[in-house]
Amino acid sequence: MISLRVAIIQTEGCHCEIRKPANMLRHIQIHTIASRKAAVDLIQNGLVRGISQSLQCRRPEVELTSVRYPGVRRGNYAQLSDRHVQHFRSILPKERVITETEDVAGYNVDWLRMVRGVSQIVLKPKITEEVSAILEYCNAENLAVCPQGGNTGLVGGSVPVFDEVIISTSLMNSIVSLDELSGILVCQAGCILENLESYLSERGFMMPLDLGAKGTCQIGGNVSTNAGGIRLIRYGSLQGSVLGIEAVKADGEVIDCLSSLKKDNTGYHLKHLFIGSEGTLGIVTKVSIQCPPSPKAVNVAFLGLDSFDDILRTFTEARSGLGEILSSCEMMDLLSLDAATSNLKLQRPIGEFPFYMLIETSGSNGTHDEEKLTKFLETLMANGVVRDGTVASEPSRIKLMWNLREGITGGLLHDGYVYKYDISLPHNSFYAIIPELRTLLPADKVGRICGYGHVGDGNLHLNITTPKFDPDVLKIIEPFVFEWTSKLKGSVSAEHGIGFKKTQYIHFSKSQSSLNLMVNIKKLMDPKGILNPYKVLPAQH
Amino acid sequence: MISLRVAIIQTEGCHCEIRKPANMLRHIQIHTIASRKAAVDLIQNGLVRGISQSLQCRRPEVELTSVRYPGVRRGNYAQLSDRHVQHFRSILPKERVITETEDVAGYNVDWLRMVRGVSQIVLKPKITEEVSAILEYCNAENLAVCPQGGNTGLVGGSVPVFDEVIISTSLMNSIVSLDELSGILVCQAGCILENLESYLSERGFMMPLDLGAKGTCQIGGNVSTNAGGIRLIRYGSLQGSVLGIEAVKADGEVIDCLSSLKKDNTGYHLKHLFIGSEGTLGIVTKVSIQCPPSPKAVNVAFLGLDSFDDILRTFTEARSGLGEILSSCEMMDLLSLDAATSNLKLQRPIGEFPFYMLIETSGSNGTHDEEKLTKFLETLMANGVVRDGTVASEPSRIKLMWNLREGITGGLLHDGYVYKYDISLPHNSFYAIIPELRTLLPADKVGRICGYGHVGDGNLHLNITTPKFDPDVLKIIEPFVFEWTSKLKGSVSAEHGIGFKKTQYIHFSKSQSSLNLMVNIKKLMDPKGILNPYKVLPAQH
Repeated sequence: MISLRVAIIQTEGCHCEIRKPANMLRHIQIHTIASRKAAVDLIQNGLVRGISQSLQCRRPEVELTSVRYPGVRRGNYAQLSDRHVQHFRSILPKERVITETEDVAGYNVDWLRMVRGVSQIVLKPKITEEVSAILEYCNAENLAVCPQGGNTGLVGGSVPVFDEVIISTSLMNSIVSLDELSGILVCQAGCILENLESYLSERGFMMPLDLGAKGTCQIGGNVSTNAGGIRLIRYGSLQGSVLGIEAVKADGEVIDCLSSLKKDNTGYHLKHLFIGSEGTLGIVTKVSIQCPPSPKAVNVAFLGLDSFDDILRTFTEARSGLGEILSSCEMMDLLSLDAATSNLKLQRPIGEFPFYMLIETSGSNGTHDEEKLTKFLETLMANGVVRDGTVASEPSRIKLMWNLREGITGGLLHDGYVYKYDISLPHNSFYAIIPELRTLLPADKVGRICGYGHVGDGNLHLNITTPKFDPDVLKIIEPFVFEWTSKLKGSVSAEHGIGFKKTQYIHFSKSQSSLNLMVNIKKLMDPKGILNPYKVLPAQH
Repeated sequence: MISLRVAIIQTEGCHCEIRKPANMLRHIQIHTIASRKAAVDLIQNGLVRGISQSLQCRRPEVELTSVRYPGVRRGNYAQLSDRHVQHFRSILPKERVITETEDVAGYNVDWLRMVRGVSQIVLKPKITEEVSAILEYCNAENLAVCPQGGNTGLVGGSVPVFDEVIISTSLMNSIVSLDELSGILVCQAGCILENLESYLSERGFMMPLDLGAKGTCQIGGNVSTNAGGIRLIRYGSLQGSVLGIEAVKADGEVIDCLSSLKKDNTGYHLKHLFIGSEGTLGIVTKVSIQCPPSPKAVNVAFLGLDSFDDILRTFTEARSGLGEILSSCEMMDLLSLDAATSNLKLQRPIGEFPFYMLIETSGSNGTHDEEKLTKFLETLMANGVVRDGTVASEPSRIKLMWNLREGITGGLLHDGYVYKYDISLPHNSFYAIIPELRTLLPADKVGRICGYGHVGDGNLHLNITTPKFDPDVLKIIEPFVFEWTSKLKGSVSAEHGIGFKKTQYIHFSKSQSSLNLMVNIKKLMDPKGILNPYKVLPAQH
């Protein structure tokens, strides 16, 4: 039994890969898989259930970003030369300066395989001082840089657009300290989220965030993108739980705000400039984070409902009746769940309903939690709000339920092309865009229009699929979705960030005065604009 | 019965006042009080219990800040002229441009009556556009400005140092909206915290912060100072619960980041520049804040313990056994409690012990909470960690217990002069500075060396009293306290901020690179330095 990171699955004419196993797949033998069917079998027999969303057909080449987006022009940065490479080799040992095209290739492509850069070099620092030396040099030499963590982002933020020098934080993976009295963890940016979770769980603590990519994503990337995920309703955003940050500015200066205190009101709270700025203001090198104690009991209820109004009633009742033990409140419509059940052959635990909810409780007393959950469900089923439901408290059954929710993303890819939107909306307007789009889009062209997401946090994942990319369909969807969201004062990117792909839509959620201030802060902190260029801020700035 | 804000108490030769009643004093008839004894009677008979910390003898004059701190020099700002006043009268109605010396006087002095400015004008805008017009003009005319909320700060941040134009937000007190599905409140900056709490409690919600000054402090000031308080252990900091901010920059530009969404990852998270920057980067005009549901049950345990180690054991057990219902975890040593019991004649509910704790639970199920609390106390009393204790669940008894904790600050003032420190320290070094100071300070000169505070958050309020101000004692305390704190990587200001009084100590908690970046951000956002000058950043910058 060994730890599996990537299993290559040979299929007809191309090859698929199962990437970054979710936490239920920590120990599995490597299988040689001869066909797509074998992969599906593997999923069905439960060995790799829940990670099937990562099953993708790898095309021989992903189109270059510079070709797919011809409107984006390379900035006036220096070209990498042998002299530069030699200098990097004076900062890092040879094996951490990667220049072989084949070895660099994987760092140039994003997880969704939608964007691809042409960087010729990957640098792998292990300590802050190396990051500092690299950036100081790149800034002096006017070399653009792309910081990369686990490369699990969904908006093209973590790969180069052109030939930016890639700085990978993957070897910066040491845990610095854990204060077992306060639960404050200090670690390097490259620690993988799931590894931190394992480390903490052995010591009675947990990470305050959890997301599908936990097996690959790094805490530095999580912090740089202000990652949300499924525990936000209970443990809040990273803006609240990150206590300190060490980051390196574009010019190599180390900004040490690595406070490991819950309270520190001494001057401007600079750490927030690095949380969510997606590596454009500095490279996060260390993080200090408040970790809550592990719950003693976890329960998951999977519910079937008739209408979105019933979802809102259930959410309100959950907040009141489950109160402080509510740790997730997720919704999915039938078509979303169907992407996991039909496309991935996962089993639906209850009958067919227009809507489903997954509600999780985490608490310090199993008996109390069970009582609260039972009463909550009895109330909702008695008054007909919840039509059917099932509850799990054993870890294996809980995983099966979460697999359904987390399998949707991957299941959708099986439809063909997916138009993905991640929007925040007020609760009472949360779902209205789905029926609206169903009237707008031509039924004969569109496979699926569905919505799921973190209803407790007002965050909808809106997905539309077509057999293959269809520019006519896209024209109907955009800018309609953004205008709709903007009209409701929603956010055009709730948790995925802006990255490369959404820079032209940021104004739908941000005022011009805010954008101007962002541009000025960028100029102040990175005057040459070498840090993750073409990302976050619109090009005209 | 009317709402009482200030009761003037005549005493021998001067007059005392009871300011800003805590929430237990919302409805009380104004008493004409002939003596200090009568005031104490009023406290003792319970009518004003808990606010006695505000009982102070008002000297005819507070020394001018410019006299007490001769090292601080007035910046090169314009002097207020009649022309300026005329212009302000074109922006605001006459009654909101206050220039009578007597009327302005109260705005020039801080709550602790330790600093006093000589502003000649107070402006009282009601809407953001008025703040914008005022600042645009002040910036153009090079007039320095001091934003003022409830003026309850403890570090001299909310009053002018010299003749700054005072902009009071006290008339900006409208609630804009409350989304009863999400619990997201949007309001103007001048709303008084207690009023918001009342408004919310009628609708099933609560403010995520609570502090002694709630009857007077304003949410804009809370946000501008990143106020902490007694609920932080449960509901986190304002950096986490504030969802959006509208603020006006020095040049009058309105920065609209007033998102009322839990998740919004579109660009840099600018709101955090205004949270905790104490009005030096902009004036907060509106706030959007995530409010949790009101608890259905609240319990408070008041415990006696033998040692600080036992306090840490109790805290660890509380986090584990009370888990998600723990809403406050406060400690006080005997001498701290004595300031409330001896000086204010409040009654101690249990016998004499070296240490006390106040532990509060807030939950959604009273029976469950009581069971958890009972089990928690039984465990700790059985193993001898807790020596004695009493539990309250009725609001009136809960208030009595909180009065003891909240009465300490005011009780200390009765000793004479109070040297106050508000520091964050790692849990295992939390209390060590107190015995250390007891060996350093001459027993014949010092009245009391005591510590209390938010042990759950690692925040110690260290207080030393002498009969009157003694510079020799101060020399022993400072910079010792700051150096001690810095050595332990603590914070020299956990929740009170830097304000005017601590600018020279900020470097004990912040690196030079961080300070440089703060200075550059200040220059970017307020190039002329008109906003709350002499505050937060050290003068040399």
